Amino acid sequence: MTDREAARPAAAPSIPVLAVVGVGLIGGSFAAALRQAGQVGKVLGVGRNAATLERARALGLIDAAATLEEAGRADLVLLAAPVGALEGLLAGLRPHLRAGTLVTDAGSTKQEVEQAARRALAGQVGQFVPGHPIAGSDATGPEAACAGLYRDRTVVLTPLPENPDAAVARVRGAWEACGALVRTMDPASHDSALAAVSHLPHWLAALYMLYVAERSDAARCLELAGSGFRDFTRIAGGSPEMWHDIFLSNRTAMLHEIQALKAVLEEAERALSRQDGQALQSMLERAAGARRAWSRERSE
Amino acid sequence: MTDREAARPAAAPSIPVLAVVGVGLIGGSFAAALRQAGQVGKVLGVGRNAATLERARALGLIDAAATLEEAGRADLVLLAAPVGALEGLLAGLRPHLRAGTLVTDAGSTKQEVEQAARRALAGQVGQFVPGHPIAGSDATGPEAACAGLYRDRTVVLTPLPENPDAAVARVRGAWEACGALVRTMDPASHDSALAAVSHLPHWLAALYMLYVAERSDAARCLELAGSGFRDFTRIAGGSPEMWHDIFLSNRTAMLHEIQALKAVLEEAERALSRQDGQALQSMLERAAGARRAWSRERSE
Repeated sequence: MTDREAARPAAAPSIPVLAVVGVGLIGGSFAAALRQAGQVGKVLGVGRNAATLERARALGLIDAAATLEEAGRADLVLLAAPVGALEGLLAGLRPHLRAGTLVTDAGSTKQEVEQAARRALAGQVGQFVPGHPIAGSDATGPEAACAGLYRDRTVVLTPLPENPDAAVARVRGAWEACGALVRTMDPASHDSALAAVSHLPHWLAALYMLYVAERSDAARCLELAGSGFRDFTRIAGGSPEMWHDIFLSNRTAMLHEIQALKAVLEEAERALSRQDGQALQSMLERAAGARRAWSRERSE
Repeated sequence: MTDREAARPAAAPSIPVLAVVGVGLIGGSFAAALRQAGQVGKVLGVGRNAATLERARALGLIDAAATLEEAGRADLVLLAAPVGALEGLLAGLRPHLRAGTLVTDAGSTKQEVEQAARRALAGQVGQFVPGHPIAGSDATGPEAACAGLYRDRTVVLTPLPENPDAAVARVRGAWEACGALVRTMDPASHDSALAAVSHLPHWLAALYMLYVAERSDAARCLELAGSGFRDFTRIAGGSPEMWHDIFLSNRTAMLHEIQALKAVLEEAERALSRQDGQALQSMLERAAGARRAWSRERSE
Protein backbone atom coordinates (compact mmCIF):
# COMPACT_ATOMS: atom_id res chain seq x y z
CA MET A 1 0.00 0.00 0.00
CA THR A 2 1.40 3.42 -0.94
CA ASP A 3 1.30 6.46 1.33
CA ARG A 4 -1.25 8.03 -0.96
CA GLU A 5 -3.59 5.06 -0.50
CA ALA A 6 -3.05 5.02 3.26
CA ALA A 7 -4.17 8.65 3.49
CA ARG A 8 -7.47 7.93 1.75
CA PRO A 9 -10.58 6.95 3.72
CA ALA A 10 -10.96 3.19 4.23
CA ALA A 11 -12.67 1.46 1.31
CA ALA A 12 -15.40 0.13 3.62
CA PRO A 13 -16.80 3.04 5.66
CA SER A 14 -17.57 2.30 9.31
CA ILE A 15 -21.19 3.45 8.80
CA PRO A 16 -22.42 2.04 5.45
CA VAL A 17 -25.80 3.79 5.76
CA LEU A 18 -26.37 6.82 8.01
CA ALA A 19 -29.85 8.24 8.52
CA VAL A 20 -30.31 11.75 9.83
CA VAL A 21 -33.76 12.74 11.05
CA GLY A 22 -33.76 16.54 10.85
CA VAL A 23 -31.33 17.87 8.23
CA GLY A 24 -30.66 21.33 9.70
CA LEU A 25 -27.63 22.69 11.56
CA ILE A 26 -27.17 19.74 13.93
CA GLY A 27 -28.10 16.81 11.68
CA GLY A 28 -26.61 18.31 8.56
CA SER A 29 -23.29 19.05 10.28
CA PHE A 30 -23.11 15.48 11.66
CA ALA A 31 -23.60 14.10 8.14
CA ALA A 32 -21.11 16.53 6.64
CA ALA A 33 -18.45 15.78 9.27
CA LEU A 34 -18.79 11.99 8.92
CA ARG A 35 -18.67 12.24 5.15
CA GLN A 36 -15.56 14.43 5.30
CA ALA A 37 -13.97 11.85 7.63
CA GLY A 38 -14.76 9.10 5.11
CA GLN A 39 -16.88 7.24 7.67
CA VAL A 40 -20.18 7.01 5.79
CA GLY A 41 -21.34 5.22 2.65
CA LYS A 42 -24.80 6.60 1.98
CA VAL A 43 -26.63 9.31 3.90
CA LEU A 44 -30.43 9.29 4.13
CA GLY A 45 -32.33 12.37 5.28
CA VAL A 46 -35.72 12.28 6.99
CA GLY A 47 -37.85 15.35 7.64
CA ARG A 48 -41.30 16.89 7.64
CA ASN A 49 -40.49 19.41 4.93
CA ALA A 50 -39.77 18.23 1.37
CA ALA A 51 -38.21 21.56 0.36
CA THR A 52 -35.73 21.42 3.27
CA LEU A 53 -34.76 17.85 2.36
CA GLU A 54 -34.22 18.90 -1.25
CA ARG A 55 -31.98 21.79 -0.14
CA ALA A 56 -29.99 19.38 2.04
CA ARG A 57 -29.60 17.07 -0.94
CA ALA A 58 -28.55 19.91 -3.25
CA LEU A 59 -25.95 20.97 -0.64
CA GLY A 60 -24.55 17.42 -0.60
CA LEU A 61 -25.43 16.84 3.07
CA ILE A 62 -27.63 13.84 2.25
CA ASP A 63 -27.77 11.50 -0.75
CA ALA A 64 -31.53 11.00 -0.70
CA ALA A 65 -34.70 11.81 1.20
CA ALA A 66 -36.13 8.80 3.02
CA THR A 67 -38.95 7.67 5.30
CA LEU A 68 -38.66 6.66 8.96
CA GLU A 69 -39.19 3.08 7.75
CA GLU A 70 -36.08 3.29 5.55
CA ALA A 71 -34.15 5.03 8.34
CA GLY A 72 -34.88 2.03 10.61
CA ARG A 73 -32.76 -0.15 8.33
CA ALA A 74 -29.73 2.18 8.44
CA ASP A 75 -26.62 1.38 10.48
CA LEU A 76 -26.80 4.56 12.55
CA VAL A 77 -29.71 6.95 12.99
CA LEU A 78 -29.26 10.44 14.47
CA LEU A 79 -32.45 12.07 15.70
CA ALA A 80 -31.78 15.81 15.38
CA ALA A 81 -35.19 17.12 16.38
CA PRO A 82 -36.64 19.09 19.30
CA VAL A 83 -36.80 16.90 22.42
CA GLY A 84 -40.60 17.03 22.45
CA ALA A 85 -40.64 15.21 19.09
CA LEU A 86 -38.28 12.37 20.07
CA GLU A 87 -40.81 9.96 21.59
CA GLY A 88 -42.96 10.10 18.46
CA LEU A 89 -39.95 9.57 16.21
CA LEU A 90 -38.69 6.60 18.25
CA ALA A 91 -42.16 5.05 18.27
CA GLY A 92 -42.29 5.53 14.49
CA LEU A 93 -38.88 3.88 14.05
CA ARG A 94 -39.47 0.90 16.31
CA PRO A 95 -41.42 -1.42 13.98
CA HIS A 96 -38.72 -0.98 11.31
CA LEU A 97 -35.62 -1.20 13.49
CA ARG A 98 -33.08 -3.81 12.34
CA ALA A 99 -31.29 -5.60 15.20
CA GLY A 100 -27.99 -4.06 14.07
CA THR A 101 -29.26 -0.47 13.85
CA LEU A 102 -28.12 2.00 16.49
CA VAL A 103 -30.05 5.17 17.26
CA THR A 104 -28.78 8.26 19.02
CA ASP A 105 -30.13 11.76 19.55
CA ALA A 106 -28.93 15.34 19.98
CA GLY A 107 -31.44 16.50 22.58
CA SER A 108 -30.43 19.04 25.24
CA THR A 109 -32.11 17.16 28.11
CA LYS A 110 -31.46 13.53 28.94
CA GLN A 111 -33.66 12.29 31.82
CA GLU A 112 -36.94 12.83 30.01
CA VAL A 113 -35.48 11.57 26.72
CA GLU A 114 -34.48 8.34 28.47
CA GLN A 115 -38.03 7.89 29.81
CA ALA A 116 -39.48 8.64 26.38
CA ALA A 117 -37.13 6.10 24.78
CA ARG A 118 -38.16 3.41 27.28
CA ARG A 119 -41.82 4.00 26.50
CA ALA A 120 -41.29 4.10 22.73
CA LEU A 121 -38.74 1.30 22.27
CA ALA A 122 -39.56 -1.00 25.22
CA GLY A 123 -37.43 -4.17 24.79
CA GLN A 124 -35.32 -2.57 22.04
CA VAL A 125 -34.22 0.39 24.16
CA GLY A 126 -30.66 -1.02 24.29
CA GLN A 127 -30.30 0.09 20.65
CA PHE A 128 -30.72 3.74 21.69
CA VAL A 129 -27.64 5.56 23.05
CA PRO A 130 -28.70 9.04 24.28
CA GLY A 131 -26.37 11.91 23.38
CA HIS A 132 -26.04 15.67 23.41
CA PRO A 133 -23.54 17.58 21.27
CA ILE A 134 -22.79 20.91 22.98
CA ALA A 135 -22.38 22.95 19.87
CA GLY A 136 -24.66 25.24 18.01
CA SER A 137 -25.26 28.57 16.46
CA ASP A 138 -28.24 30.85 16.10
CA ALA A 139 -28.17 30.07 12.38
CA THR A 140 -30.53 27.26 11.43
CA GLY A 141 -31.37 25.06 8.44
CA PRO A 142 -29.24 22.97 6.08
CA GLU A 143 -27.40 26.07 4.84
CA ALA A 144 -25.98 26.56 8.36
CA ALA A 145 -24.55 23.02 8.49
CA CYS A 146 -20.78 22.60 8.29
CA ALA A 147 -18.36 19.73 8.70
CA GLY A 148 -16.37 21.61 11.36
CA LEU A 149 -19.23 22.37 13.78
CA TYR A 150 -18.26 19.67 16.29
CA ARG A 151 -14.48 20.04 16.09
CA ASP A 152 -13.11 20.34 19.65
CA ARG A 153 -16.67 20.61 21.03
CA THR A 154 -17.94 18.43 23.86
CA VAL A 155 -20.47 15.69 23.18
CA VAL A 156 -22.05 14.11 26.26
CA LEU A 157 -23.35 10.55 26.08
CA THR A 158 -25.63 9.29 28.87
CA PRO A 159 -25.63 5.54 28.16
CA LEU A 160 -28.44 3.30 29.40
CA PRO A 161 -27.75 0.17 31.45
CA GLU A 162 -29.23 -1.76 28.50
CA ASN A 163 -26.68 -0.40 26.01
CA PRO A 164 -24.04 -2.99 25.05
CA ASP A 165 -20.52 -1.58 25.45
CA ALA A 166 -19.99 -2.01 21.72
CA ALA A 167 -23.04 0.16 20.96
CA VAL A 168 -21.74 3.00 23.14
CA ALA A 169 -18.30 2.62 21.56
CA ARG A 170 -19.74 2.90 18.04
CA VAL A 171 -21.69 6.08 18.82
CA ARG A 172 -18.63 7.51 20.60
CA GLY A 173 -16.53 6.64 17.56
CA ALA A 174 -18.90 8.46 15.20
CA TRP A 175 -18.74 11.66 17.27
CA GLU A 176 -14.97 11.37 17.60
CA ALA A 177 -14.75 11.07 13.82
CA CYS A 178 -16.55 14.47 13.75
CA GLY A 179 -13.68 15.88 15.85
CA ALA A 180 -15.69 16.05 19.10
CA LEU A 181 -14.49 15.36 22.64
CA VAL A 182 -16.84 12.71 24.01
CA ARG A 183 -17.62 12.25 27.70
CA THR A 184 -20.17 10.08 29.45
CA MET A 185 -22.31 11.23 32.40
CA ASP A 186 -25.44 10.11 34.20
CA PRO A 187 -28.56 11.84 32.85
CA ALA A 188 -29.42 13.67 36.09
CA SER A 189 -25.95 15.26 36.34
CA HIS A 190 -26.15 16.23 32.68
CA ASP A 191 -29.54 17.87 33.10
CA SER A 192 -28.56 19.77 36.21
CA ALA A 193 -25.30 21.06 34.73
CA LEU A 194 -26.94 22.02 31.43
CA ALA A 195 -29.80 23.77 33.24
CA ALA A 196 -27.12 25.90 34.92
CA VAL A 197 -24.85 26.73 31.97
CA SER A 198 -27.16 26.60 28.97
CA HIS A 199 -30.88 26.61 29.79
CA LEU A 200 -30.76 29.32 32.47
CA PRO A 201 -28.78 31.75 30.25
CA HIS A 202 -31.32 31.22 27.48
CA TRP A 203 -34.16 31.81 29.92
CA LEU A 204 -32.64 35.09 31.11
CA ALA A 205 -31.61 36.36 27.68
CA ALA A 206 -35.02 35.62 26.15
CA LEU A 207 -37.08 37.09 28.99
CA TYR A 208 -34.82 40.13 29.22
CA MET A 209 -35.20 40.68 25.45
CA LEU A 210 -38.98 40.33 25.78
CA TYR A 211 -39.00 42.84 28.62
CA VAL A 212 -37.04 45.48 26.69
CA ALA A 213 -38.90 44.93 23.41
CA GLU A 214 -42.32 45.40 25.01
CA ARG A 215 -41.52 48.59 26.99
CA SER A 216 -43.43 51.66 25.89
CA ASP A 217 -40.10 53.36 25.04
CA ALA A 218 -38.61 50.27 23.37
CA ALA A 219 -37.62 52.00 20.14
CA ARG A 220 -35.57 54.68 21.89
CA CYS A 221 -33.92 52.10 24.15
CA LEU A 222 -33.04 49.69 21.37
CA GLU A 223 -31.42 52.50 19.37
CA LEU A 224 -28.97 53.01 22.23
CA ALA A 225 -28.15 49.33 22.62
CA GLY A 226 -24.49 48.52 21.99
CA SER A 227 -22.16 45.56 21.70
CA GLY A 228 -22.79 44.36 25.29
CA PHE A 229 -26.51 44.12 24.58
CA ARG A 230 -25.78 42.38 21.28
CA ASP A 231 -23.73 39.60 22.88
CA PHE A 232 -25.92 39.25 25.97
CA THR A 233 -29.08 38.75 23.91
CA ARG A 234 -27.67 36.77 20.97
CA ILE A 235 -29.09 33.44 22.18
CA ALA A 236 -32.57 34.96 22.59
CA GLY A 237 -32.92 34.71 18.79
CA GLY A 238 -32.76 30.88 18.97
CA SER A 239 -35.62 28.58 17.97
CA PRO A 240 -38.68 29.14 20.23
CA GLU A 241 -39.91 25.62 19.45
CA MET A 242 -36.66 23.99 20.52
CA TRP A 243 -36.37 26.03 23.71
CA HIS A 244 -40.00 25.53 24.66
CA ASP A 245 -39.33 21.79 24.55
CA ILE A 246 -36.09 22.08 26.52
CA PHE A 247 -37.64 24.18 29.31
CA LEU A 248 -40.63 21.86 29.71
CA SER A 249 -38.47 18.76 29.45
CA ASN A 250 -35.96 20.00 32.04
CA ARG A 251 -38.61 21.73 34.15
CA THR A 252 -37.59 20.39 37.55
CA ALA A 253 -33.93 21.34 37.17
CA MET A 254 -34.89 24.71 35.67
CA LEU A 255 -37.24 25.64 38.52
CA HIS A 256 -34.48 24.74 40.96
CA GLU A 257 -31.95 26.90 39.07
CA ILE A 258 -34.34 29.83 38.90
CA GLN A 259 -34.85 29.75 42.69
CA ALA A 260 -31.14 29.47 43.40
CA LEU A 261 -30.24 32.35 41.07
CA LYS A 262 -32.99 34.47 42.59
CA ALA A 263 -31.24 34.31 45.97
CA VAL A 264 -28.09 35.85 44.43
CA LEU A 265 -30.06 38.50 42.52
CA GLU A 266 -31.93 39.48 45.67
CA GLU A 267 -28.76 39.73 47.72
CA ALA A 268 -27.37 42.14 45.13
CA GLU A 269 -30.61 44.10 44.97
CA ARG A 270 -30.54 44.56 48.75
CA ALA A 271 -26.93 45.77 48.55
CA LEU A 272 -27.89 48.28 45.84
CA SER A 273 -30.96 49.48 47.79
CA ARG A 274 -28.96 50.23 50.89
CA GLN A 275 -26.06 51.66 48.82
CA ASP A 276 -23.68 49.06 50.19
CA GLY A 277 -20.83 49.71 47.78
CA GLN A 278 -18.49 47.27 49.49
CA ALA A 279 -20.88 44.32 49.10
CA LEU A 280 -21.56 45.24 45.47
CA GLN A 281 -17.88 45.64 44.69
CA SER A 282 -17.15 42.23 46.17
CA MET A 283 -19.84 40.54 44.08
CA LEU A 284 -18.71 42.27 40.87
CA GLU A 285 -15.08 41.39 41.53
CA ARG A 286 -15.85 37.72 42.14
CA ALA A 287 -17.97 37.63 38.96
CA ALA A 288 -15.34 39.34 36.79
CA GLY A 289 -12.59 37.14 38.25
CA ALA A 290 -14.57 33.97 37.50
CA ARG A 291 -15.43 35.07 33.97
CA ARG A 292 -11.83 36.02 33.19
CA ALA A 293 -10.56 32.72 34.60
CA TRP A 294 -13.05 30.75 32.47
CA SER A 295 -12.02 32.73 29.42
CA ARG A 296 -8.31 32.11 30.03
CA GLU A 297 -8.85 28.37 30.49
CA ARG A 298 -10.88 28.09 27.31
CA SER A 299 -8.86 30.64 25.34
CA GLU A 300 -12.11 32.34 24.31
CA MET B 1 -4.97 74.98 -3.54
CA THR B 2 -4.40 71.59 -5.15
CA ASP B 3 -6.59 68.53 -4.49
CA ARG B 4 -3.72 66.99 -2.61
CA GLU B 5 -3.53 69.91 -0.22
CA ALA B 6 -7.31 69.95 0.25
CA ALA B 7 -7.24 66.30 1.36
CA ARG B 8 -4.68 67.01 4.06
CA PRO B 9 -5.68 67.94 7.61
CA ALA B 10 -5.90 71.69 8.12
CA ALA B 11 -2.62 73.29 9.13
CA ALA B 12 -4.21 74.66 12.32
CA PRO B 13 -5.91 71.77 14.15
CA SER B 14 -9.33 72.54 15.67
CA ILE B 15 -8.08 71.40 19.10
CA PRO B 16 -4.55 72.79 19.60
CA VAL B 17 -4.17 71.06 22.98
CA LEU B 18 -6.25 68.05 24.02
CA ALA B 19 -6.04 66.65 27.54
CA VAL B 20 -7.24 63.14 28.28
CA VAL B 21 -7.73 62.16 31.91
CA GLY B 22 -7.55 58.37 31.89
CA VAL B 23 -5.50 57.02 28.98
CA GLY B 24 -7.08 53.57 28.63
CA LEU B 25 -9.54 52.21 26.07
CA ILE B 26 -11.95 55.16 26.09
CA GLY B 27 -9.55 58.08 26.52
CA GLY B 28 -6.79 56.54 24.41
CA SER B 29 -9.18 55.83 21.54
CA PHE B 30 -10.54 59.39 21.62
CA ALA B 31 -7.00 60.76 21.38
CA ALA B 32 -6.05 58.31 18.63
CA ALA B 33 -9.16 59.08 16.57
CA LEU B 34 -8.72 62.86 16.81
CA ARG B 35 -5.06 62.58 15.92
CA GLN B 36 -5.87 60.39 12.92
CA ALA B 37 -8.46 62.97 11.84
CA GLY B 38 -5.82 65.70 12.08
CA GLN B 39 -7.87 67.59 14.67
CA VAL B 40 -5.35 67.82 17.51
CA GLY B 41 -2.04 69.57 17.97
CA LYS B 42 -0.67 68.23 21.23
CA VAL B 43 -2.20 65.53 23.45
CA LEU B 44 -1.62 65.57 27.21
CA GLY B 45 -2.38 62.49 29.32
CA VAL B 46 -3.35 62.61 33.00
CA GLY B 47 -3.56 59.55 35.23
CA ARG B 48 -2.84 58.03 38.62
CA ASN B 49 -0.39 55.48 37.27
CA ALA B 50 2.96 56.64 35.83
CA ALA B 51 3.61 53.30 34.11
CA THR B 52 0.27 53.46 32.28
CA LEU B 53 0.98 57.00 31.13
CA GLU B 54 4.38 55.92 29.87
CA ARG B 55 2.81 53.05 27.91
CA ALA B 56 0.28 55.46 26.40
CA ARG B 57 3.14 57.75 25.40
CA ALA B 58 5.16 54.89 23.91
CA LEU B 59 2.07 53.84 21.91
CA GLY B 60 1.76 57.38 20.52
CA LEU B 61 -1.65 57.99 22.14
CA ILE B 62 -0.37 60.99 24.11
CA ASP B 63 2.58 63.30 23.62
CA ALA B 64 3.31 63.85 27.29
CA ALA B 65 2.10 63.06 30.79
CA ALA B 66 0.64 66.08 32.56
CA THR B 67 -1.00 67.21 35.79
CA LEU B 68 -4.63 68.27 36.26
CA GLU B 69 -3.34 71.81 36.52
CA GLU B 70 -1.81 71.60 33.03
CA ALA B 71 -4.96 69.88 31.71
CA GLY B 72 -7.03 72.87 32.86
CA ARG B 73 -5.19 75.04 30.33
CA ALA B 74 -5.95 72.72 27.38
CA ASP B 75 -8.60 73.52 24.76
CA LEU B 76 -10.59 70.34 25.37
CA VAL B 77 -10.43 67.96 28.33
CA LEU B 78 -12.00 64.48 28.20
CA LEU B 79 -12.55 62.87 31.58
CA ALA B 80 -12.39 59.14 30.87
CA ALA B 81 -12.67 57.84 34.43
CA PRO B 82 -15.24 55.88 36.45
CA VAL B 83 -18.26 58.09 37.24
CA GLY B 84 -17.49 57.97 40.96
CA ALA B 85 -14.19 59.77 40.29
CA LEU B 86 -15.62 62.61 38.18
CA GLU B 87 -16.57 65.02 40.96
CA GLY B 88 -13.07 64.89 42.43
CA LEU B 89 -11.48 65.40 39.00
CA LEU B 90 -13.73 68.36 38.19
CA ALA B 91 -13.01 69.93 41.58
CA GLY B 92 -9.30 69.41 40.93
CA LEU B 93 -9.57 71.05 37.50
CA ARG B 94 -11.63 74.05 38.54
CA PRO B 95 -8.94 76.36 39.95
CA HIS B 96 -6.88 75.90 36.77
CA LEU B 97 -9.65 76.13 34.18
CA ARG B 98 -9.03 78.72 31.45
CA ALA B 99 -12.19 80.52 30.28
CA GLY B 100 -11.79 78.96 26.83
CA THR B 101 -11.33 75.39 28.04
CA LEU B 102 -14.16 72.92 27.46
CA VAL B 103 -14.53 69.77 29.53
CA THR B 104 -16.54 66.67 28.66
CA ASP B 105 -16.79 63.20 30.11
CA ALA B 106 -17.48 59.62 29.03
CA GLY B 107 -19.51 58.47 32.02
CA SER B 108 -22.33 55.95 31.60
CA THR B 109 -24.79 57.87 33.83
CA LYS B 110 -25.69 61.49 33.37
CA GLN B 111 -28.08 62.75 36.09
CA GLU B 112 -25.62 62.22 38.93
CA VAL B 113 -22.71 63.45 36.81
CA GLU B 114 -24.60 66.68 36.19
CA GLN B 115 -25.18 67.15 39.93
CA ALA B 116 -21.52 66.38 40.63
CA ALA B 117 -20.44 68.91 38.01
CA ARG B 118 -22.66 71.62 39.52
CA ARG B 119 -21.13 71.02 42.95
CA ALA B 120 -17.56 70.91 41.65
CA LEU B 121 -17.64 73.69 39.05
CA ALA B 122 -20.33 76.02 40.44
CA GLY B 123 -20.34 79.16 38.26
CA GLN B 124 -18.08 77.54 35.66
CA VAL B 125 -20.41 74.59 35.02
CA GLY B 126 -21.24 75.99 31.58
CA GLN B 127 -17.78 74.86 30.46
CA PHE B 128 -18.73 71.22 31.10
CA VAL B 129 -20.69 69.39 28.37
CA PRO B 130 -21.71 65.93 29.68
CA GLY B 131 -21.34 63.06 27.21
CA HIS B 132 -21.45 59.29 26.91
CA PRO B 133 -19.87 57.36 24.04
CA ILE B 134 -21.72 54.05 23.68
CA ALA B 135 -18.77 51.98 22.64
CA GLY B 136 -16.49 49.69 24.51
CA SER B 137 -14.86 46.35 24.78
CA ASP B 138 -13.91 44.07 27.63
CA ALA B 139 -10.28 44.84 26.79
CA THR B 140 -8.83 47.64 28.88
CA GLY B 141 -5.72 49.82 29.08
CA PRO B 142 -3.85 51.91 26.51
CA GLU B 143 -3.04 48.78 24.47
CA ALA B 144 -6.76 48.33 23.78
CA ALA B 145 -7.19 51.86 22.40
CA CYS B 146 -7.76 52.26 18.68
CA ALA B 147 -8.66 55.13 16.37
CA GLY B 148 -11.68 53.24 15.00
CA LEU B 149 -13.46 52.51 18.30
CA TYR B 150 -16.10 55.22 17.84
CA ARG B 151 -16.69 54.84 14.11
CA ASP B 152 -20.48 54.56 13.51
CA ARG B 153 -21.08 54.32 17.27
CA THR B 154 -23.57 56.52 19.08
CA VAL B 155 -22.36 59.25 21.42
CA VAL B 156 -25.05 60.86 23.60
CA LEU B 157 -24.59 64.42 24.81
CA THR B 158 -26.83 65.70 27.61
CA PRO B 159 -26.12 69.46 27.46
CA LEU B 160 -26.73 71.71 30.45
CA PRO B 161 -28.88 74.85 30.20
CA GLU B 162 -25.67 76.75 31.02
CA ASN B 163 -23.76 75.38 28.01
CA PRO B 164 -23.36 77.96 25.23
CA ASP B 165 -24.47 76.53 21.86
CA ALA B 166 -20.94 76.96 20.57
CA ALA B 167 -19.59 74.78 23.40
CA VAL B 168 -21.99 71.93 22.59
CA ALA B 169 -21.16 72.31 18.89
CA ARG B 170 -17.42 72.02 19.59
CA VAL B 171 -17.80 68.85 21.67
CA ARG B 172 -20.18 67.42 19.06
CA GLY B 173 -17.63 68.25 16.35
CA ALA B 174 -14.85 66.44 18.21
CA TRP B 175 -16.92 63.24 18.48
CA GLU B 176 -18.03 63.52 14.87
CA ALA B 177 -14.38 63.80 13.87
CA CYS B 178 -13.94 60.42 15.62
CA GLY B 179 -16.59 58.99 13.26
CA ALA B 180 -19.36 58.86 15.88
CA LEU B 181 -23.08 59.57 15.46
CA VAL B 182 -23.91 62.23 18.04
CA ARG B 183 -27.36 62.73 19.57
CA THR B 184 -28.54 64.89 22.41
CA MET B 185 -30.99 63.77 25.10
CA ASP B 186 -32.09 64.94 28.52
CA PRO B 187 -30.14 63.20 31.31
CA ALA B 188 -33.15 61.39 32.84
CA SER B 189 -34.12 59.79 29.50
CA HIS B 190 -30.50 58.80 28.94
CA ASP B 191 -30.21 57.18 32.36
CA SER B 192 -33.47 55.30 32.05
CA ALA B 193 -32.71 53.97 28.55
CA LEU B 194 -29.15 53.02 29.49
CA ALA B 195 -30.34 51.29 32.66
CA ALA B 196 -32.54 49.15 30.40
CA VAL B 197 -30.13 48.29 27.56
CA SER B 198 -26.72 48.42 29.22
CA HIS B 199 -26.76 48.43 33.02
CA LEU B 200 -29.42 45.73 33.48
CA PRO B 201 -27.66 43.28 31.09
CA HIS B 202 -24.43 43.80 32.99
CA TRP B 203 -26.22 43.25 36.30
CA LEU B 204 -27.73 39.96 35.07
CA ALA B 205 -24.59 38.68 33.36
CA ALA B 206 -22.38 39.41 36.36
CA LEU B 207 -24.74 37.96 38.98
CA TYR B 208 -25.45 34.91 36.83
CA MET B 209 -21.68 34.36 36.42
CA LEU B 210 -21.21 34.73 40.18
CA TYR B 211 -24.00 32.23 40.83
CA VAL B 212 -22.52 29.57 38.52
CA ALA B 213 -18.94 30.11 39.64
CA GLU B 214 -19.79 29.66 43.33
CA ARG B 215 -21.88 26.48 42.96
CA SER B 216 -20.44 23.41 44.63
CA ASP B 217 -20.31 21.68 41.21
CA ALA B 218 -18.98 24.77 39.39
CA ALA B 219 -16.03 23.01 37.77
CA ARG B 220 -18.18 20.33 36.14
CA CYS B 221 -20.73 22.90 34.99
CA LEU B 222 -18.18 25.30 33.52
CA GLU B 223 -16.57 22.47 31.56
CA LEU B 224 -19.88 21.97 29.75
CA ALA B 225 -20.42 25.65 29.00
CA GLY B 226 -20.57 26.43 25.28
CA SER B 227 -20.76 29.39 22.94
CA GLY B 228 -24.13 30.60 24.27
CA PHE B 229 -22.66 30.87 27.77
CA ARG B 230 -19.58 32.58 26.37
CA ASP B 231 -21.55 35.37 24.67
CA PHE B 232 -24.12 35.74 27.45
CA THR B 233 -21.43 36.23 30.11
CA ARG B 234 -18.84 38.18 28.11
CA ILE B 235 -19.71 41.53 29.72
CA ALA B 236 -19.41 40.03 33.22
CA GLY B 237 -15.61 40.26 32.78
CA GLY B 238 -15.79 44.08 32.63
CA SER B 239 -14.20 46.40 35.20
CA PRO B 240 -15.80 45.86 38.67
CA GLU B 241 -14.74 49.39 39.69
CA MET B 242 -16.46 51.00 36.72
CA TRP B 243 -19.65 48.99 37.10
CA HIS B 244 -19.82 49.51 40.87
CA ASP B 245 -19.84 53.26 40.17
CA ILE B 246 -22.44 52.95 37.41
CA PHE B 247 -24.87 50.90 39.52
CA LEU B 248 -24.62 53.23 42.50
CA SER B 249 -24.79 56.32 40.34
CA ASN B 250 -27.85 55.07 38.41
CA ARG B 251 -29.37 53.35 41.47
CA THR B 252 -32.91 54.72 41.18
CA ALA B 253 -33.32 53.76 37.53
CA MET B 254 -31.66 50.37 38.17
CA LEU B 255 -33.96 49.48 41.06
CA HIS B 256 -36.91 50.38 38.87
CA GLU B 257 -35.61 48.21 36.01
CA ILE B 258 -34.95 45.27 38.33
CA GLN B 259 -38.56 45.38 39.62
CA ALA B 260 -40.03 45.63 36.14
CA LEU B 261 -37.95 42.75 34.78
CA LYS B 262 -38.87 40.64 37.81
CA ALA B 263 -42.54 40.82 36.80
CA VAL B 264 -41.70 39.25 33.40
CA LEU B 265 -39.43 36.61 34.96
CA GLU B 266 -42.13 35.65 37.45
CA GLU B 267 -44.81 35.40 34.78
CA ALA B 268 -42.56 32.97 32.87
CA GLU B 269 -41.75 31.02 36.03
CA ARG B 270 -45.46 30.56 36.77
CA ALA B 271 -46.03 29.34 33.19
CA LEU B 272 -43.18 26.82 33.58
CA SER B 273 -44.44 25.65 36.99
CA ARG B 274 -47.91 24.90 35.69
CA GLN B 275 -46.50 23.46 32.43
CA ASP B 276 -48.31 26.06 30.37
CA GLY B 277 -46.56 25.37 27.08
CA GLN B 278 -48.68 27.80 25.13
CA ALA B 279 -47.81 30.78 27.36
CA LEU B 280 -44.12 29.83 27.29
CA GLN B 281 -44.11 29.40 23.52
CA SER B 282 -45.71 32.82 23.08
CA MET B 283 -43.09 34.52 25.28
CA LEU B 284 -40.20 32.75 23.52
CA GLU B 285 -41.61 33.63 20.08
CA ARG B 286 -42.01 37.30 20.95
CA ALA B 287 -38.47 37.39 22.37
CA ALA B 288 -36.90 35.65 19.35
CA GLY B 289 -38.88 37.84 16.95
CA ALA B 290 -37.74 41.02 18.71
CA ARG B 291 -34.11 39.89 18.81
CA ARG B 292 -34.09 38.93 15.14
CA ALA B 293 -35.72 42.25 14.17
CA TRP B 294 -33.10 44.21 16.15
CA SER B 295 -30.34 42.22 14.54
CA ARG B 296 -31.70 42.82 11.02
CA GLU B 297 -32.02 46.56 11.61
CA ARG B 298 -28.50 46.81 12.94
CA SER B 299 -27.00 44.26 10.57
CA GLU B 300 -25.31 42.57 13.55
